Amino acid sequence: MEKNERSTPIPGKEKEVDIINIKGIEDIGYVQPDSILLNSLTPEENTQCQHGLYFQDGERRVDYILTYHIKKPSSSRSNRQSSRFTDNAFTRSLRRGTARLGRPPPPQPRGDPEVASQDHSMDYHEDDKRYRREEFEGNLRDMGLELEKDEDTKTPGVGFVKIHAPWHVLCREAEFMKLKMPTKKVYEVKQCSGVGAKINTLVNKATEPLHPNVEENRGQHVKHLSYAFSREKQHLFDLSDRDSFFDSKTRASIVFEVLKRTKCTKAKYSMGNVGPYFLMQRVVHHAGSPLYVLYSTLFYPKAEIVLFFPCRKYFGEKIGLYFAWLGLYTQMLIPASLVGVIVFLYGCATVDNNIPSMEICHPRNNITMCPLCDRACNYWKLKEACGTARASHLFDNPATVFFSIFMALWAAMFMEHWKRRQMRLNYEWDLTGFEEEEVSDHPRAEYELCVMQKSLKKEHKTHKVLIAYSWVFTIGVTFAIVFGVILYRISITAALHMSNNPTTRSNVRLMVKTTAAIINLVVILILDEVYGAVARWLTVLEVPKTDRSFEERLIFKTFVLKFVNAFTPIIYIAFFRGRLVGRPGSYLYVFESYRMEECAHGGCLMELCIQLSITMLGKQLIQNNLFEIGIPKLKKLIRYIKSKRRSFQEEEREKKLQRYETDHFLEPFAGLTPEYMEMIIQFGFVTLFVASFPLAPLFALLNNIIEIRLDAKKFVAELRRPVAARAKDIGIWYNLLRGVAKVAVIINAFVISFTSDFIPRLVYQYMYSPDGSMHGFVNHTMSYFNVSDFQDGKEPMDPHHLGYQVEMCRYKDYREPPWSNTPYVVSKEFWAVLAARLAFVIVFQNVVMLMSDIVDWLIPDIPKDISLQIHKEKILMVELFMKEEQGKMQFIDSMTPCDGKGRNNHAPIARSRSIPHTHSHTHANNF
Amino acid sequence: MEKNERSTPIPGKEKEVDIINIKGIEDIGYVQPDSILLNSLTPEENTQCQHGLYFQDGERRVDYILTYHIKKPSSSRSNRQSSRFTDNAFTRSLRRGTARLGRPPPPQPRGDPEVASQDHSMDYHEDDKRYRREEFEGNLRDMGLELEKDEDTKTPGVGFVKIHAPWHVLCREAEFMKLKMPTKKVYEVKQCSGVGAKINTLVNKATEPLHPNVEENRGQHVKHLSYAFSREKQHLFDLSDRDSFFDSKTRASIVFEVLKRTKCTKAKYSMGNVGPYFLMQRVVHHAGSPLYVLYSTLFYPKAEIVLFFPCRKYFGEKIGLYFAWLGLYTQMLIPASLVGVIVFLYGCATVDNNIPSMEICHPRNNITMCPLCDRACNYWKLKEACGTARASHLFDNPATVFFSIFMALWAAMFMEHWKRRQMRLNYEWDLTGFEEEEVSDHPRAEYELCVMQKSLKKEHKTHKVLIAYSWVFTIGVTFAIVFGVILYRISITAALHMSNNPTTRSNVRLMVKTTAAIINLVVILILDEVYGAVARWLTVLEVPKTDRSFEERLIFKTFVLKFVNAFTPIIYIAFFRGRLVGRPGSYLYVFESYRMEECAHGGCLMELCIQLSITMLGKQLIQNNLFEIGIPKLKKLIRYIKSKRRSFQEEEREKKLQRYETDHFLEPFAGLTPEYMEMIIQFGFVTLFVASFPLAPLFALLNNIIEIRLDAKKFVAELRRPVAARAKDIGIWYNLLRGVAKVAVIINAFVISFTSDFIPRLVYQYMYSPDGSMHGFVNHTMSYFNVSDFQDGKEPMDPHHLGYQVEMCRYKDYREPPWSNTPYVVSKEFWAVLAARLAFVIVFQNVVMLMSDIVDWLIPDIPKDISLQIHKEKILMVELFMKEEQGKMQFIDSMTPCDGKGRNNHAPIARSRSIPHTHSHTHANNF
Repeated sequence: MEKNERSTPIPGKEKEVDIINIKGIEDIGYVQPDSILLNSLTPEENTQCQHGLYFQDGERRVDYILTYHIKKPSSSRSNRQSSRFTDNAFTRSLRRGTARLGRPPPPQPRGDPEVASQDHSMDYHEDDKRYRREEFEGNLRDMGLELEKDEDTKTPGVGFVKIHAPWHVLCREAEFMKLKMPTKKVYEVKQCSGVGAKINTLVNKATEPLHPNVEENRGQHVKHLSYAFSREKQHLFDLSDRDSFFDSKTRASIVFEVLKRTKCTKAKYSMGNVGPYFLMQRVVHHAGSPLYVLYSTLFYPKAEIVLFFPCRKYFGEKIGLYFAWLGLYTQMLIPASLVGVIVFLYGCATVDNNIPSMEICHPRNNITMCPLCDRACNYWKLKEACGTARASHLFDNPATVFFSIFMALWAAMFMEHWKRRQMRLNYEWDLTGFEEEEVSDHPRAEYELCVMQKSLKKEHKTHKVLIAYSWVFTIGVTFAIVFGVILYRISITAALHMSNNPTTRSNVRLMVKTTAAIINLVVILILDEVYGAVARWLTVLEVPKTDRSFEERLIFKTFVLKFVNAFTPIIYIAFFRGRLVGRPGSYLYVFESYRMEECAHGGCLMELCIQLSITMLGKQLIQNNLFEIGIPKLKKLIRYIKSKRRSFQEEEREKKLQRYETDHFLEPFAGLTPEYMEMIIQFGFVTLFVASFPLAPLFALLNNIIEIRLDAKKFVAELRRPVAARAKDIGIWYNLLRGVAKVAVIINAFVISFTSDFIPRLVYQYMYSPDGSMHGFVNHTMSYFNVSDFQDGKEPMDPHHLGYQVEMCRYKDYREPPWSNTPYVVSKEFWAVLAARLAFVIVFQNVVMLMSDIVDWLIPDIPKDISLQIHKEKILMVELFMKEEQGKMQFIDSMTPCDGKGRNNHAPIARSRSIPHTHSHTHANNF
Repeated sequence: MEKNERSTPIPGKEKEVDIINIKGIEDIGYVQPDSILLNSLTPEENTQCQHGLYFQDGERRVDYILTYHIKKPSSSRSNRQSSRFTDNAFTRSLRRGTARLGRPPPPQPRGDPEVASQDHSMDYHEDDKRYRREEFEGNLRDMGLELEKDEDTKTPGVGFVKIHAPWHVLCREAEFMKLKMPTKKVYEVKQCSGVGAKINTLVNKATEPLHPNVEENRGQHVKHLSYAFSREKQHLFDLSDRDSFFDSKTRASIVFEVLKRTKCTKAKYSMGNVGPYFLMQRVVHHAGSPLYVLYSTLFYPKAEIVLFFPCRKYFGEKIGLYFAWLGLYTQMLIPASLVGVIVFLYGCATVDNNIPSMEICHPRNNITMCPLCDRACNYWKLKEACGTARASHLFDNPATVFFSIFMALWAAMFMEHWKRRQMRLNYEWDLTGFEEEEVSDHPRAEYELCVMQKSLKKEHKTHKVLIAYSWVFTIGVTFAIVFGVILYRISITAALHMSNNPTTRSNVRLMVKTTAAIINLVVILILDEVYGAVARWLTVLEVPKTDRSFEERLIFKTFVLKFVNAFTPIIYIAFFRGRLVGRPGSYLYVFESYRMEECAHGGCLMELCIQLSITMLGKQLIQNNLFEIGIPKLKKLIRYIKSKRRSFQEEEREKKLQRYETDHFLEPFAGLTPEYMEMIIQFGFVTLFVASFPLAPLFALLNNIIEIRLDAKKFVAELRRPVAARAKDIGIWYNLLRGVAKVAVIINAFVISFTSDFIPRLVYQYMYSPDGSMHGFVNHTMSYFNVSDFQDGKEPMDPHHLGYQVEMCRYKDYREPPWSNTPYVVSKEFWAVLAARLAFVIVFQNVVMLMSDIVDWLIPDIPKDISLQIHKEKILMVELFMKEEQGKMQFIDSMTPCDGKGRNNHAPIARSRSIPHTHSHTHANNF
């Protein structure tokens, strides 16, 4: 690899190709579709912008734009920075490849003399890239695309290649891609007349004033019959307006398809990948369309119904599906939050009739409780727990059991409805025949690089070890942090208890809880970002073969890490806290001196609820909203400032930038993963612990109403427009949702039976209560402890704190009393309650699963009206063809009465010229 | 509705159309594809048969045959019988329809004078049918089909319409149906080089001598690229041999498609249905092909590998999938039965080391047990239960726990493997682009009839009540029968115990068990047939809209009923028997006098095992094999005899019958439902109670090895050849299998924890055993009973039977001893064991479900090599087209250098005449 110094300066404006936005995977030539979205919403008003939409001739539309960086002498600093990234394994191997091919390096090396000494090896690559780019452009022209270069823009350092796909290329590719296009044939869609439809109409009428005006022009009563585009069947399609037959998103995705296919043979490593380009898509806006999207989402309550229509037309099916999904989810949250609020209100209303809390709060209640910590704490009266007990009832009443069953079924319903909605959208978006390419993805460039370097197997081994370690480490960190917070809580509690200030003491619990929850929240927020990076790093190490598998692995890892991160503290509180306490006289200790935490008397449900609400609300407010609005704005600002600093003199020109130039400063579209991830974590909060926090759906609903608008605004105004991607479903996210819903059933079963006091109450009522009521329950759940059995040094320092000598204290557990043969051993009641709890888990889990399956089975996956329409379309299509056929046949019969049996095969197609049916005019054009 | 007597005799042979095989749904004009399969395997040898394969001209192939019945004067009796069915709502409404149309009834009525007086109304319908038939035939001719009538056959009373689809019709329909056909382009299939492939090769080599010779000609290394057939792209396909381009099954299904579409306008009721025909398919055999199928299935051990190839080619994809599924299932049973046998052998090997049974059998064991029945029974020594205890260990040891986990994972594996196999077959059978028509089925004729009669809603209501009652009744019958068997067992036991004959007494248990199991088996076998009929009747009452929904509902109902039928007695034994016994001194009684059954001391697992094996083996031997071979033979014989009786004089002619005439005597193909149903019930036996009967997979395997051959023989030799149906999956059966596998997990969890003694043993070992061993377990599980606490009249008649005065007897339960404060109340141990049992159920269920999900997630649904091949094919296809395009473009460029931007759209297609690429020759033919 001799690094020759080639630094002959070239007269005139010096251009050196460079690669911007290097992000690890891009520096080896991977096609990263950086997309530009146009912000100016009314192209008609701005002739400068209008100009940017077409080639110089003002005729040919720009369907796609590729960008690359040109190195300028004035910007050597930024060049150097990016060159640091380019000088890596890939370029080295590339050079090797070129050398092997016997091609000498490009003969006219150029470079800025000032930077040549340090950048000499880079210059070489720059030239190399330029050659590869030229070859690539040639290949694109061979494919029929028309290109126009624009390196002399007002944006410094960036070159643009505008691409126009002429009509015949569009047709050809549409045929290859089997795009379904609307035919001339129109039929009427029968409006369904069921009860559901009537309700729908009523709802629509009621919300009429809220609808945006644009809504009205959607003529949904007729539908064009769709058929896979085929040039031989052009007469079927309405080609009167060729410019609008393929809309801008289709044109862009057609060009993208061609780009994907075009190879760069000089770069030996590339098998189907483009090469040294970063592609920037740039698609002509429909006039007013983004405005429409934006305003309809901002002001229309049933946003998704409006949304998925223009969204899909503008952004493509993949983003359309996201909004449709988000819309359905938000819609489904409405009944869930309604029921949740009712359940909560039921709790509020019945709090005064709740016998256990009444007993605790009863003024004559005189139960002495054992101290909550060693030495520092004192015996206390059960009455003191009155407030907590009453608050607990809000979340721990029979209605919560009903609510968690309801929410499990709700989740099943949601899944089913989504399947149906997806099916409906597939039909309405003419995707029914489209086979997803999931199985036939291009191998990723890094994968091929690894294969090329023959290092895959070796690296794989070391990486596997690394990956395993990382997993262990990452999960370890999460648990360590949870443990840390626990320790914090224990030690602070103990420390504060020891304080002599009585007001401090009384506020101990509340303070500790709140600070601990906030610390947890902060840790969760920080770790969330860290884990995102870790997941990406782990996935890169794994070197998945295709982009799709890369994405799926990344999503899965991120999901697992973020989920563990968000829910570990909550799971600790729900299932472990207060279980491993031991009993008076033989408490369990961590680090010899810290006693494990107990829950307040009302059970851990109350604390679980506090933790849940703080985590959920905090996450939503800070992460979803603050970050989502703030960070893109910040990034845009930084980009803007950077570019400004680079070229002060062009400041005044910026106002008349080409539209793709203004879009260049927008943040590139980074995929839907963060949006979905956020929502699925929220779905976890809504379903997983819903038994302990019935208000979760309400908070989720409020968040989503904002979220759907923020997302729409972000896509329209703050991100480059992405390449329209076709998609039939939401992919891995559906499986993750299903997984969360499944886990939710079992977690809710455990929360109800183990965290709440529901089962002990039932057992008491039906097995032990003398009169079948709840009276005496509080007494029944508490065991006796003889204070003389305290270990030395653990007894309270001030035994006379309550004003009398305490001989027996009580603690919440089912154990034998001190006077039995086997003192302090778990009692028969303990086993009976445990059996009841376990039985409840089994019954709850299986009943809910069965009901979910029944819901799944009862709701057909394909809506009835859609299946009818598909059937109708099929019949219409065959009729259409048969009519045509018969016309042809008659014609043939009249022309060739006896053509011989085996010989007339091609005739019907080739010779039809004057076919007597409605489409004969256009059809005749073909020949 | 004037019923004019029209009975003018017609000279010559009198023919009256009639409908055969009326089965409820057929008499209103439903298209029932009765299929004929040709038995003669070598058509070359038999010129008579050869003749039957072609039209009279000997050129045009017969692709399909329609049959209808001709009434002959000699057969008036059979006519009258069938006319009873035809004179029903449908024909009446039809007449009404005709009258409304203003068409007078046919003017030349004919009929046999002798029978006219009684058959006059029928004659009218006969004529009506003939007219409709003629219209239908005309419509078929309009669609391009060529017909040849053959009413003058040697088979009396049957008319045949032979249908030939000429080349252009085949092409047209293949295009409509989007059939994927092999193109000329051939590519090499890369043999996978993984470890699996190597093992496969080894296995193949090892079984080389077993392969049939025909195996060799399968050149699997190259594959033709497939593409949806299109007449415009004919040059892509290898049309050198037009007669074999579309094989016989494809031709038949093409004709069937046309028939389905053809309407009979005169019959107003028909919306897309054929009319008064019974269609009989008849497809020309590939020479030797069925022989191949038959012999390869009979002698080749890995039958399915050979099978699905010719099967699909001969019977179509639907039956091909069945055999592929059955083959995979059988293959998967091999490891399952191996592990099952090992588990069983482990039980046999460890029986002598099993401490509990050793303790029971120990000669110094002196435990006195309470009597097993009131008065008649005596105290007995636990030693007597030694045999049962030892036998129980065979099925109740730790290995069974492992085995049921294994089988749950096995089921998940099987599902996953089937998904992969299905995907592979879809690819190999070129179905990847095929969209199933499940959503767009034709409405069933009965449904339309109901709609027409406007009686649907009213009938629906009454039917709903009827259906509800029937369900209740049917399920009630099942439970009643189970209860009856229980009563039988109880009463017989009591009666036999009372007998004075000591040998009778000692054999009591065995006799009762065996007879009860046999009674159960007989009842199951009888009810199985009854339930099949009930399910069909219920489904008919429901009037489902489409055929598919009819089939699915029928399958579901049959499945539920047969499943309940087969498993209710087993579930009773597993979970209820021995639970509701009560305790000595307060036993539970049915009908005041019969004590509920107890299990033998070894637990109910032993009895469960006996019941399972008898039911499973009996069902398989009698129902599957005996019935499946016997009944078709019998039916064929009856059909043969019937036809013989009708026409003695034609006996000698039968040897030279047309091939379709011989096939006419075969049983029509009744769908795959019985075959699948049988297998899914078997799958239930293999998975549901596998914890108690590890040999079930072995028996299933043995049965299936026979079954696969019997089925193949039946389809080839005993049934008419069905219309080839395309199918991508096995439909509802997959869901049912999943359901069974899910239920299996929970049932096995309960069997292990509640039926077996696994959990009590564990609890004893870890909680109560003084030395951590199992010594003392038997004693620990038994409670004491003071004989003075017996209710009056319930104590044994002969208290000194054992030779000493019994004061305390023991019984198997966890209860407090008589000397405790709360005698005979369930003890703490009971609750502890119960909690452990429930905990085990939760852990088992969730662990196994999680593991199944992981298996599901780890095994990709699409095999890697297939996804690679699909990708490769896509690239090849685009390359092929692009080559072609470029050729065209070059040509255009040279011909029309400046055509104007908007005008050259159709040119590339229409004007290509001399395209310089490989396919130019064929392609040029088009123009």
